This record gives sequence, C-alpha cells and structure tokens, in this order.
Amino acid sequence: MDRVRIAVLGASGYTGADLVRLALAHPGVEIAALGASQKAGAKMADIWPHFAAHRDLPPLCRTGEIDFGRVDIVFGCLPHGAGAAVLAELAAPRVIDLSADFRLKSAETYADWYGVPHPAPERLEAAVYGLTEFARPHLADARLVACPGCYPTAALLALLPLAEARAIEPADIAIFALSGVSGAGRSLRESNLFVEVAEAAAPYSVGRHRHMPEIEQELARAFGEPVAVSFTPHLLPMNRGELETIAVRLAPGARVDDLRQLLARRYADEPFVHLLPEGTPPATRMVRGSNHCVLNVFPDRRPSHALVIAAIDNLVKGSSGQALQNMNVMLGLPETLGLEAAPLFP
Amino acid sequence: MDRVRIAVLGASGYTGADLVRLALAHPGVEIAALGASQKAGAKMADIWPHFAAHRDLPPLCRTGEIDFGRVDIVFGCLPHGAGAAVLAELAAPRVIDLSADFRLKSAETYADWYGVPHPAPERLEAAVYGLTEFARPHLADARLVACPGCYPTAALLALLPLAEARAIEPADIAIFALSGVSGAGRSLRESNLFVEVAEAAAPYSVGRHRHMPEIEQELARAFGEPVAVSFTPHLLPMNRGELETIAVRLAPGARVDDLRQLLARRYADEPFVHLLPEGTPPATRMVRGSNHCVLNVFPDRRPSHALVIAAIDNLVKGSSGQALQNMNVMLGLPETLGLEAAPLFP
Amino acid sequence: MDRVRIAVLGASGYTGADLVRLALAHPGVEIAALGASQKAGAKMADIWPHFAAHRDLPPLCRTGEIDFGRVDIVFGCLPHGAGAAVLAELAAPRVIDLSADFRLKSAETYADWYGVPHPAPERLEAAVYGLTEFARPHLADARLVACPGCYPTAALLALLPLAEARAIEPADIAIFALSGVSGAGRSLRESNLFVEVAEAAAPYSVGRHRHMPEIEQELARAFGEPVAVSFTPHLLPMNRGELETIAVRLAPGARVDDLRQLLARRYADEPFVHLLPEGTPPATRMVRGSNHCVLNVFPDRRPSHALVIAAIDNLVKGSSGQALQNMNVMLGLPETLGLEAAPLFP
Amino acid sequence: MDRVRIAVLGASGYTGADLVRLALAHPGVEIAALGASQKAGAKMADIWPHFAAHRDLPPLCRTGEIDFGRVDIVFGCLPHGAGAAVLAELAAPRVIDLSADFRLKSAETYADWYGVPHPAPERLEAAVYGLTEFARPHLADARLVACPGCYPTAALLALLPLAEARAIEPADIAIFALSGVSGAGRSLRESNLFVEVAEAAAPYSVGRHRHMPEIEQELARAFGEPVAVSFTPHLLPMNRGELETIAVRLAPGARVDDLRQLLARRYADEPFVHLLPEGTPPATRMVRGSNHCVLNVFPDRRPSHALVIAAIDNLVKGSSGQALQNMNVMLGLPETLGLEAAPLFP
Repeated sequence: MDRVRIAVLGASGYTGADLVRLALAHPGVEIAALGASQKAGAKMADIWPHFAAHRDLPPLCRTGEIDFGRVDIVFGCLPHGAGAAVLAELAAPRVIDLSADFRLKSAETYADWYGVPHPAPERLEAAVYGLTEFARPHLADARLVACPGCYPTAALLALLPLAEARAIEPADIAIFALSGVSGAGRSLRESNLFVEVAEAAAPYSVGRHRHMPEIEQELARAFGEPVAVSFTPHLLPMNRGELETIAVRLAPGARVDDLRQLLARRYADEPFVHLLPEGTPPATRMVRGSNHCVLNVFPDRRPSHALVIAAIDNLVKGSSGQALQNMNVMLGLPETLGLEAAPLFP
Repeated sequence: MDRVRIAVLGASGYTGADLVRLALAHPGVEIAALGASQKAGAKMADIWPHFAAHRDLPPLCRTGEIDFGRVDIVFGCLPHGAGAAVLAELAAPRVIDLSADFRLKSAETYADWYGVPHPAPERLEAAVYGLTEFARPHLADARLVACPGCYPTAALLALLPLAEARAIEPADIAIFALSGVSGAGRSLRESNLFVEVAEAAAPYSVGRHRHMPEIEQELARAFGEPVAVSFTPHLLPMNRGELETIAVRLAPGARVDDLRQLLARRYADEPFVHLLPEGTPPATRMVRGSNHCVLNVFPDRRPSHALVIAAIDNLVKGSSGQALQNMNVMLGLPETLGLEAAPLFP
Repeated sequence: MDRVRIAVLGASGYTGADLVRLALAHPGVEIAALGASQKAGAKMADIWPHFAAHRDLPPLCRTGEIDFGRVDIVFGCLPHGAGAAVLAELAAPRVIDLSADFRLKSAETYADWYGVPHPAPERLEAAVYGLTEFARPHLADARLVACPGCYPTAALLALLPLAEARAIEPADIAIFALSGVSGAGRSLRESNLFVEVAEAAAPYSVGRHRHMPEIEQELARAFGEPVAVSFTPHLLPMNRGELETIAVRLAPGARVDDLRQLLARRYADEPFVHLLPEGTPPATRMVRGSNHCVLNVFPDRRPSHALVIAAIDNLVKGSSGQALQNMNVMLGLPETLGLEAAPLFP
Repeated sequence: MDRVRIAVLGASGYTGADLVRLALAHPGVEIAALGASQKAGAKMADIWPHFAAHRDLPPLCRTGEIDFGRVDIVFGCLPHGAGAAVLAELAAPRVIDLSADFRLKSAETYADWYGVPHPAPERLEAAVYGLTEFARPHLADARLVACPGCYPTAALLALLPLAEARAIEPADIAIFALSGVSGAGRSLRESNLFVEVAEAAAPYSVGRHRHMPEIEQELARAFGEPVAVSFTPHLLPMNRGELETIAVRLAPGARVDDLRQLLARRYADEPFVHLLPEGTPPATRMVRGSNHCVLNVFPDRRPSHALVIAAIDNLVKGSSGQALQNMNVMLGLPETLGLEAAPLFP
C-alpha cells in the first residue's frame, strides 16, 4: 500500500507536535508537510528539541507553500478561528480538524462561546463529530472531521452509553475534571509558568468553559432533549493526563450495576476503551502517552446516584491520537494501526 | 506571661512535625516534650532534617517517660486508635487531639468506619469538635478538643453557614476534593511513592472515605436533619494543599448571590477565613504553609445550583495550625498568636 | 522601639514578594511603601493571591510617588540596571539592593557581563558586599549594601573559609549548581513554562552565567589572587531551593577532615549556617522557606580532592532573607529577628 | 521470520515493566514468559495498571515454572545478586542481564562494592559488557550480555571516544549526575516517598555509588591505565531521565573543539547517539521514553578544561531499551527495530 501523505497545520503547538510524534510511529503515513507560519523555515528539532533525532522531517513552512494537491489528509492543529477559513476551502484533501471550529453544529452557539462569528458556517452541517467509537458509520465518507475536545472525549465516552439507554437523568450531571498543563497549550501566560502551577491545584473557567456546549450538544443528541451540565475543570501540576469524576443521578429503576453493565457491553470489543475491574479507580498514569481510555463506575453515598470516572491522555485520545484513529477509519486501515503503543509509566 | 508548656505525642509524623514547626514560631509556647515511641532517643533533626538548625529541641521519648504533671496542653498527633486510650486517661493537662478518635459523637459510627471498637466511648460526649470558627464558646472550658479532619475543615467552612441558613438542600451536596500527598502520612506504601504520584491524578477511597461521616455529622447538626453527602477525594502530585469544589442545589427561593452574602457576613471578621473577590477561584497556592482558608461561590450551569470552592493547607488549617488556634482560644490568648505567617509562594 | 519604615522597590517580582512575606513576620518592621511601576494602583493581593489575607498592605505605586524622606531602609528588588540610577541618587534612606548592580567592584567587569555601562560606577567602591556572615564589620555604617546573588551565597559560604585558610587550590574549583525555577523570575519565557520544566533537568548559561564573576571576585579576595571557577547551573522541576556540589583540590598537606574542621570552627556560632553531621548530604528540603544554609564535606574518589556541598533557599538566604539579615545588622537589631521561622517541610 | 521468544525475569520492577512496554512495540518479539516470583499468579495489569489494555500478556510466574527450552532470549531484570545464579546456569537461551552482576570483570571488585561474594565468577570473563555502540563485534556470538548501568551508559557514551583518543586527562574527570526517581526502583523506602522528593534536590551515595567501579573499569580499558573518577549522583523530583555534566581536563595540545570533533565523528552514523548543535545544552526532556542519547561539549571557564554533557532516559537507553538494542544486534536484526519511537514530550 502507498503511504498516506499527510500535512499538519500548526506543527508548532503541543497538539501538532504530538501528532507528528504519533505519525512517525504509524507505518502507513508519510509526513508530507508541516505548517507553522510563524516558525516557517525552521526545523522541528529547532523548536521541539525532543525531535533531535528526527532532523529529516520536512521543514516548517507557511500554509500557502503547501501543495495540497499532493496531500491525502490535512490535520488542522491551529487555534480555533485561525485555520477554519483555510480548511473550509480545501476541496481535494480530506480534513481532520483538531481545533474547536467544526465541533458545534450551531454557528450561533459558536459565536456565543468563542466571541467571533463562525468563519465557515456552511460546512458545519456536514462536518462529522469525530468521537471515533460513536462516529464510525459517518467517517468512511467524511470530507471534514471535527475531533472532539479533550474534556468532551472523556466525558462522552463515560456518559453516552448511559444517556442513550436513559439510565441517568439529564438534569443532574456534574462533571469535575482535572487536567495537566499541556492542555493549556504552549502560550506564554503567567498561569502556565512552572512556579504558578507546581505545588498548586486550582479550578479555572468556572461555569464558562468552552467545552461545555460541546458536551451538551452531544449529550442532548443522545438523550433526545436539551441538557445543561455542570462542568468544572481544574489545572494540576502535571504535564499530561485528564481525569473526570462525574456524579450522575440514576433514572427511576436504574441501579449502579446497570451503569457498569451498559459500559461493559458497549465497550467490550473496543480496542481503546476499557472498563476497569470493579473497585479500581481510573488514574491518568494508566494511560499516559497512549490512546487508551479507562473507565469505572462507583456507587455514590447519596441514594440513587453514581460516580462515573474516566481517564485519558489529553494529547492522545483527547487530541492527536483520536485524530489518527479517525484517519484510520476514514481510509479503511486497521483502526489501531500506529496507535498500539502501551502507556509510558513511570 | 509564662509560656504554655506543651507535649506533642506523635512527633515523628507529618502532623506532629508541622505542629513543632508552628510551635517554634509561637511566642507563648514552650515545647516541653516530644513523644515518638518508635524513635525514642533520637533527635528531631535526625528524623526530620529540616530541623537541622533546631538541635536544642527535646529528644524524642516514649509517652510513658513524659511528666504530664508539668505539661499544660497535650497535642495528640498519633494515628487513630493509637493514642485514644492514653489521652482519655489524662486528667490534668488539657488535650487537643488531631487524630480521628474523638471527632464522631457515636461510638457505633466510629466502629463502623474505623473497624475497631472505640477505645474511650465515655469521653465522646464532652469532647469538643474543634472547628475553631464554630467552636469558640465551647473551647474555653474544654478538657478534650477533637480537631477536625483536613477534608471536613474545608468542607464545613464552605458549607456550615449555608446549611445553618437553610440556603442549600441537604440531599444534594457533592464534594470533589483534591489533596497533596502529605495528607496520606509518611507511611511506606506503594501509592505514596514519588513515581506513582508524579504526573498522575487519581481518586481514592471512592464512596468510603472516613471523613464522610464526620462531614455528615456536622452538616446534620447544622441542617437539623440527617445528611448523606457525596465525597470523592483525589490524590495529586503536590506536597501540601487541599481544594474542594462543592456542587450544591439551592433551597427554594435562594439565589447564588445569597450564598456569597451568607459567607461574606459570616466570615467578615474572621482572621483566617477569606471570601475572595467575585470571580476569583481559590487555589492551594494562595494558602500554602499558612492557617488561612480561601473561599468563593460561583453560579453553576445547571439552574438552581451553585459551586462553592474552598482551599486550605491540609497540614496547617487542616491540622496543626487549627490545633494551635484552638489552644489560643482555650487559653484566652489572641487567637492568631503564632499563626500570622503569610503563605509561602512560590 | 519605633518600627523601621521600609520601602520595597520591585514588589511585583518573586524576590520582592518574598521580602514582603518575610517583612510581615518581622516585629520591628513597618512596610511603608511598595513600588511596582507597571502595576501601580493595584493591591499586592491582586497580583499575588497568596496575600489574600493581607489586603491592608500599602497599594503598589510608582517609585516617584514614594516619600523617601519618611523611609528608613529601601530594598531594591528590581531587575539589574532598572533601579541602579534611582538607588544611587537616594541619600537619606539607606539602601539594600538585591539586584546585581552593586555587587561587582569593577565597572568594566559589569559592562562585560551585563552588556551595558554601569549606571552609577562612583558608588561601587563604597557599596558593601552583603554576605552577612563575612560583612558584619562593614554593615554598621553602610549606606548601600549589595546583597549577593543566590548562587554566590551558597558557593561563598561553602568556600570562603577554605580559601581564606588556603586549604584548597584556587585553580581547581568546579561548582555544579541546581536551582528551582523561582530563581528565573516571573518573566514569560518559554523555558519557564510548566510543561518545559516538569519531568526535565537541564543545564543553562553553560560557561557564561553572570554569577561567575561575582563568585570569582570574592574568592580572589579571599585567596589573594585571581581565580577562574567552573560554574554550571541546572534548572530543576521545583519551585525553590538551590544546591551546589563543589569539587575542590586540596592544597598540599591539607586533608578532607581539615576542611570539615575549618567550616565547623567558622560557623560554630552562626545562627543560619550549619555543618551537618558527617556523612549527611545537604538537601534543599532541609531549608525550604527559611534563612538557613546547610553544608557538608565529603571525600572525593580522586586523591587529594574533596566535595563541598551546600543548600539554601534561593529566595530567602539567597535573596530576601539575607537582605533582612543585613538590615538587622545595619540597625543593631538582633540578627535573627524576624527570620527565626523553621523550614517548611513537607 | 519467526518471532523471537523472550522471557523477562523480574517483570514486577520498573526495568522489567519498561522492557515489556518496549517489547510489545517490537514487531519481532513474542513475550513467552514473565517471571516475578513474589507476584506469581497475578496479571501484569494487576500490579502495573498502565497495562490495563494488555490483559492478554502471560501471567506472572516463578522462575522455576518457565520452560527455558522454548525461550530464545532471557532478560534478567532482577536486583543484583538475586538472579545471577539462575542466569549463570542457563545454557540454551542466550542471556541479557540488566542487573549489575556481570558488569564488573573482577569478582573481588564486585565483592568489595556489593558486599557479597560473586555468585558465578566463572562467567565474568566471557560476559560481554553491552554498551551497544562499543560492543557490536562481541555481541554476535555472546551467550551472556551485561547491560551497563544507567549512569555508566551516559558517562561512557560521553567519555569513551575522548579517552580512546587520549584527548582528556584520566586523572581529572568529575561527573555530576542527576536522575529521576525511577532509577531507585519501586522499593518502599522513605527516601522514595513523593513528599521527600518533591520540591527537593539532594546528592546521595556521595563518594561511594556502585556505578563508580563500572565507569572506571571501562574508562581504564579505553585509557589503557587505571582511572579514578569523581562521581556524584543527585536525586531529582522527576520520574525519568538522567543528565550528566562532566568536567574534564584537556590533554596537552587538545582543544575544546577537538572534543566536539571526536564525538561528531564517532557518532555520525549512530541512530541513537546525537551530538547537539553547538551551544545547545542537552536536557532530559529531549529523550524521555526513547532510546536516544543527546550530547554536547562546552568550554569550561578554567583554562584547559571542558564540560561534556549527556542526557538519556534511564529506563530506556539506560536500561531496557539498550537491552533490546543488544538483542537486535545479537540476532542480526536491524538495530533500531522496535526502538524507533520518538521521545514523549510534553
């Protein structure tokens, strides 16, 4: 088989860099172009010293320099808003966008939460929301795939099977989320400095994080009715990893064990989603650097409530890994190809 | 004024050591004896190298070697169960216990959660639950004060004023708690190893942590009815600090702003409890090493819900600092004496 | 006694903030003014949330707004070059400068290493190099004290007694230094981001760190001849703390134990410098948050060599704590006043 | 090609677990048996939750239960002394030992440093010291390969080409080494607890670390004369990674640039050893999780001295990765097979 030729737009961010790391391990991929307008001309190893051994990667270039006619798949790793116009224009190569631009179906909701009009509202309807485990039938022919945000990925893997079965109440979902700092990107903000984060834990964007409407959109689809969820992210002193502890109210007649059974059945054959043995809490160290998600369900002390807990690596299953998983499905490749690496621990 | 002569039982644990650190800074205290049976004969600096400059501290000794007749206040920093019998026998010196032994009013509840019969059930009724800000009237004459657990301290400071005012619903309280590793003590368990904790976040004791009944006991007292709370602690890669994000349902007619007002009024004159400016989330770095608690209230996205967030240093306000604060009140000293140090940041 | 009225210029940096933290604990000090030109008008608690409980501190102001006539001591915590001109003009209040501006005696050396002409060369000769343990006779009448850099503080405490006794060879001193990130300041540089530092260790400024000429100047004074030292700093994933492992060649006839004896004698009565028991390696956790320095000497495997190891808190003994220690000496106060706090561990 | 059937003895330690992680990614390897006597019967996922997705690995078993007749290569990942007797007896399968047992050529030196008589001195002579880049000619026929210790790996990659060329003086080598905590193993010691290590840096085993004689043995071979090196390891708050900053004295006539040229030439075609661009300091984040080593040379401020700096991942190139690299060479496989993964950053 010929290798798939990919272009990565935004290779100078954490997401883009981790996509390159994973693509290097993918036997079916050739990295054809690396876009990073502000760093055009530099080598990846210049801005990402962990690629010191990979000085043969294509040099960073401006988007306009890429010959998209010779590219099969474009990965958009740009900040929201920055790449949508470009990506929306691309006809020939299929697009997998890792930004927030094509996740929300409503241009109004996008404008409300992101503060700018949507750059390409006409593409929203056909864009496929790429939570792979729930998107496979739509991926085969997709021209534009919007990869879920990292928090929504963990939340939806934990909740969608329960919502579809109506085993939990839509009105009473409280998501407490923990994330490593790589989720905040490589931007020079005081809140990302080592000294501010180390030996510290703090919530942020309380009550107004942009992943809220995305979680709600997909839960609403599963429930068949509008949903408003409580979602509170916290920043922790670690590089990678995301853990969500979700308190849910059981639907009338449902028991905690039913939730376990629903997840067990739904994910029995999934290569990347794993229900842990009863009583074992998920932890981010179980998935570091890998495309896996670990899940579990616990009784809550409040009657008729349960806790559903999920952990992923925010940069892999929460971002670049899922993007490659989507690519594999889009191209008819084995879904796990290039993503088999076991987690890195310690 | 003569200095208060104190004895610390359990000076070889983190709690005992931090009590010694704080007592050294207290101008009204003389450290008369340091109990640590397994390390008897050693110097504090031998087992706690950060006391290298304090080689004049009394040597560690067995409990039986202490002349309690020449001690004014005994601080119990032993693991639960280990010191209760000794402490219960002590008549003359007043006792401030930092273990879990005298916090629960019911010997049955104690036996249920700690797995052993209570060693001195006859002392439970008179023991004062020492959440200082709510215990002052009872501290002046107290012979035995039970300092709250670290998690209950933050949870109750956040919730008690709301419960007393019936501004929130008792049936719908979900506490998500984050803690540094010092909360787990200096015991040699795999889960406390650096490599297991660093670059990791994980919940533990899900649905069955021993601080649950303690929180419920005090909330029930405030609400005037039994309460079952959801409480899920998580271990984080940091030494000190505790943060609790608490989702509550508002009582009929109550608004989010009412919660802020209740906390603002209740703590307006408190030296150690601070409602932050609207919109500023509490963080553990704001209180590290100090006896302060920072609080705030946020609207939740779910209608009729709110988020109450609190941060403390688990070893200070959550343990040894509060113990000294209680001592100050018991002895009629200025309540902040020896506890004025500002937090250590970075 | 009346309280000493101090002004802190540069209260928006880590050094300035830690000076404020320490000054708040000093019973003889009143904080009269806090300069921070770019943040003028803000409160300390706005930019340093760990001062949430200290909203009564003076507001931040521009230097020009300070009435220096009502100030006894000015602490300069500005970046090098930024404050020298101002400080050099001040006649009335005595100045303790924590920047690099008045440490080097030679304006040429300053220009070589800092890349700009010295802003006030006429003040260099009279400025006292404030390594307190070696500067006491000169501090009483000093108008301008230059506090040593953090690395030089640890290096000189370890080496000066050995150099003065000619127990080591001046030509063969190799200093390997480790530092927490607070040493790099609160500036928004990629290299200070959490993600770049966590799970990482790396040398920086190899062969050209600005603390080199300062160490050499003071060693040369002690040896009575010019010295060139090897000095390699490394950045570590921690907030505070500095450790230096120094390989030295013994002078003819000197033995490793002689070095121990020299340090033991020199520091026997020092309140802040401690030779550890034989065989105990210094560690930064022994001094965190305190003004202490711990030292030790070990045989090296190479014949006629030894290892001298020192640890300090870079922001306290390495900066703000030593500045207050100098102030105490300058004013005839007890030298340890306000600096007695034991280290914070964990 | 048939897959190579491997057995891993000591799969319950960090080294063994990381070997399993790497072996899972190696297309030519089948994991036939996993020895871990104290955990026999358990699954890897039970003791290493990051293998949650790999529940099909062979169960842990006692050494005696392994059918070595059906194994091609045995990897010894046991503590020193524990496995030597077993490994020494094995005739049929070839052995790659990751312990210290077969590294030293002299049984006397082993007894001196490890405190016990060597368990199989008759095997020492034929054992190949497996620093791959220097051992290839001997690996093809080796029956027993002793993988170097983690510190010696970095030190020797940095120094051997310089020693062989006599560009540096054997009498003046000072190695300052930094290591993450995984190097200390998963043993329950106070010094490995999170709280003791976080926010701390400290040297250990000063002047008496067991990797000293190993470094000296190999340097002596290269120099053709006995060598005594200064070697001081420090423990840092990070999981993985090792950095060595080595001060050397140049041989008469040699210049710093000669050292760079020697390393450049020696490693020009090496897939895993990389001389960085001039002026770029090595950092552990450049190699995390990978089999790469990054190197550089800097002028020292002392005349006729230089600094050689190297970084590796202690568990990969410093242990399990190098073991697989050796296996590839022993079996005539492409040397990089299964080891191509790029470093994990962040």
